Amino acid sequence: MRFSARGHEVTIVDNFARRRWHLEQSTDSLTPISSLEDRIEAWEEVSGKRIDARVGCIEDGEFLDEVVRETLPEVVIHYGEQPSAPYSMRSRQTAVETQQTNVVGTLNLLFSMREHVPDAHLIKLGTMGEYGQPNIDIEEGYIEIEHNGRKDTLPFPKLPGSLYHCSKVHDSTNIHFACRVWGLRATDLNQGVVYGIETDETVLDDRLQTRFDYDETFGTVLNRFCVQAVVGHPLTVYGSGGQTRGYLNIKDTLRCVELAALTPADRGEFRVFNQFTEQFSVSELAKLVQKCGAEAGYDVAIESYPNPRVEKEEHYYNASNQKLLDLGLEPHPLGDELVKSVLGIIDRNRDRVIQRALEPKTKWNPGELEGGIVPAAPHA
Amino acid sequence: MRFSARGHEVTIVDNFARRRWHLEQSTDSLTPISSLEDRIEAWEEVSGKRIDARVGCIEDGEFLDEVVRETLPEVVIHYGEQPSAPYSMRSRQTAVETQQTNVVGTLNLLFSMREHVPDAHLIKLGTMGEYGQPNIDIEEGYIEIEHNGRKDTLPFPKLPGSLYHCSKVHDSTNIHFACRVWGLRATDLNQGVVYGIETDETVLDDRLQTRFDYDETFGTVLNRFCVQAVVGHPLTVYGSGGQTRGYLNIKDTLRCVELAALTPADRGEFRVFNQFTEQFSVSELAKLVQKCGAEAGYDVAIESYPNPRVEKEEHYYNASNQKLLDLGLEPHPLGDELVKSVLGIIDRNRDRVIQRALEPKTKWNPGELEGGIVPAAPHA
Repeated sequence: MRFSARGHEVTIVDNFARRRWHLEQSTDSLTPISSLEDRIEAWEEVSGKRIDARVGCIEDGEFLDEVVRETLPEVVIHYGEQPSAPYSMRSRQTAVETQQTNVVGTLNLLFSMREHVPDAHLIKLGTMGEYGQPNIDIEEGYIEIEHNGRKDTLPFPKLPGSLYHCSKVHDSTNIHFACRVWGLRATDLNQGVVYGIETDETVLDDRLQTRFDYDETFGTVLNRFCVQAVVGHPLTVYGSGGQTRGYLNIKDTLRCVELAALTPADRGEFRVFNQFTEQFSVSELAKLVQKCGAEAGYDVAIESYPNPRVEKEEHYYNASNQKLLDLGLEPHPLGDELVKSVLGIIDRNRDRVIQRALEPKTKWNPGELEGGIVPAAPHA
Repeated sequence: MRFSARGHEVTIVDNFARRRWHLEQSTDSLTPISSLEDRIEAWEEVSGKRIDARVGCIEDGEFLDEVVRETLPEVVIHYGEQPSAPYSMRSRQTAVETQQTNVVGTLNLLFSMREHVPDAHLIKLGTMGEYGQPNIDIEEGYIEIEHNGRKDTLPFPKLPGSLYHCSKVHDSTNIHFACRVWGLRATDLNQGVVYGIETDETVLDDRLQTRFDYDETFGTVLNRFCVQAVVGHPLTVYGSGGQTRGYLNIKDTLRCVELAALTPADRGEFRVFNQFTEQFSVSELAKLVQKCGAEAGYDVAIESYPNPRVEKEEHYYNASNQKLLDLGLEPHPLGDELVKSVLGIIDRNRDRVIQRALEPKTKWNPGELEGGIVPAAPHA
């Protein structure tokens, strides 16, 4: 909708995987999501612009090749992956599904682009979670290393924290290869944790609402805390809450993608942007929601839950995010106003909240009781 | 056979993928390979030891899980991957097959080990090709990085040179994750290029011969040069021949695997050994084969072919291989004697040489003619 509003011709490819995964675990977006055709019609009504849609799986190389051949895109924005860390950690089957979907879908896309649109710009949704929690500053994709008197600029080492995050590292490796060897051009947007509900386009019509996931699997932490605040559930802080990450407003997400598209990577370049605007710890977010909740009339408790993940809870974290700022990103910082507005939207949809989805169930290491050992130094 | 001869109980899992791939491209091992059951019977005749065999695909998680549950291995030696860079670069289909086979098979294995034998030691065949050609010394798996006044020891950055090599990087990422998060123990053997034909076990009976691949797809460079010398084909040097890599004798390969098995990694440890004994450039190997060939009565020409790969032809290369030496590896250095012995074995099988398989056909960048651009700085 963002691109269509600005006069670009847009084709969507969708296989409705997210809706299927929600069905399979009896959860749903807090905001009701219209059917794809209803959304396209609504968009045409409010904007006068038509968005084209193709239904199919990008793991199906023939299908994807046909779409690329027929539409000859200048820019491909690739959001078509299984995006949940807990989903990938649930079982062998979901782990394999995650890596197969994400790796094969992207490989198919790289081959189709090489064949039909070698000059097009691939914008790939990555994740800050590829870097993990190293004890040094996190740079944007590459790091200059001086070693035994010699120097090189090499890919920043990765310590992905789930099998989903591993799959994103795999993709980065494949896309980097395609740029180096085939001369494709790509931008990897290593995104932080997104919060917020509304964009300039979704507010134009109820049928254009985007999804708001708050469940253990597909929800993100600030959104989930806001839902918990409204329904009177304690905020579920995993462990000590010192886990620090990069965050950004959903509106800034769209602007980042737009900035990347308007200033493409060079031929042969694999460009990496760290896409977040501020760093917070989980405890800081919980306190913010507690405070804003109190001002909005909610009595919000904060509770520490045994951490279902294997991660450092107190750690150094300092990531660069300069490149998108240099391109002109003007961040919407997180403040009371945003949190209160989200609480209000949740309140209007509170009948749709599924209580059972609010607590963590998926353990990173279910074998802990049977002799699984977590090493003292988590990455060496 | 090596482990069986020393009194270990051995179960083999095979899906005959290599034989199928040879069938599909009308090539074959220079040495005739007996059926699996014939080899097992021959081994029992010469050694008195029985090797168990299970036929199936490790991409089939149910099958693999059954094997692991029934055999409860102490050590798993994982050679079950598509091992050819050119095969992975041939088409979208072979690229997807390579990454799917290698990534999903290994993921299945990690889950089966976590479930049934969390204390077992995984020995995984990796490749020196994961590192690519960085302009700094290559360490064994990890590198200490000092950056902005802070330090950490992190995975060595990877610049894989084909979609096959990418799949091995993916596997390393997944196995490292399983060690960090589930407390598994694993050794990644980043192997150099193997040469040679015979081992202490294969010479005991003709039916025990191992394969000797020399074709563009599955052959390795020194073996292929030896075949070319015997049949009077020019040695096919790709480009300038300055490409430098680590190499080792097939006998040292077996000893390395044995050393890794006898001194397992710790629980939670992902241990990486660079498994090679010497470094050579392609030109050095060509000259060695030319010299030994002349002494054996062959008139050997060396010819530079347009490089079908995208790689640096003149570059810095200095990799560490200390860890296996520290465990007691005593390398068989490459010399005239080995080359002449290989030439002799090839001569006895010269009727089996398939000429069409001796020249490179698979291009890394078939789009070069249609606007594919290879960037000046191949990895940034």
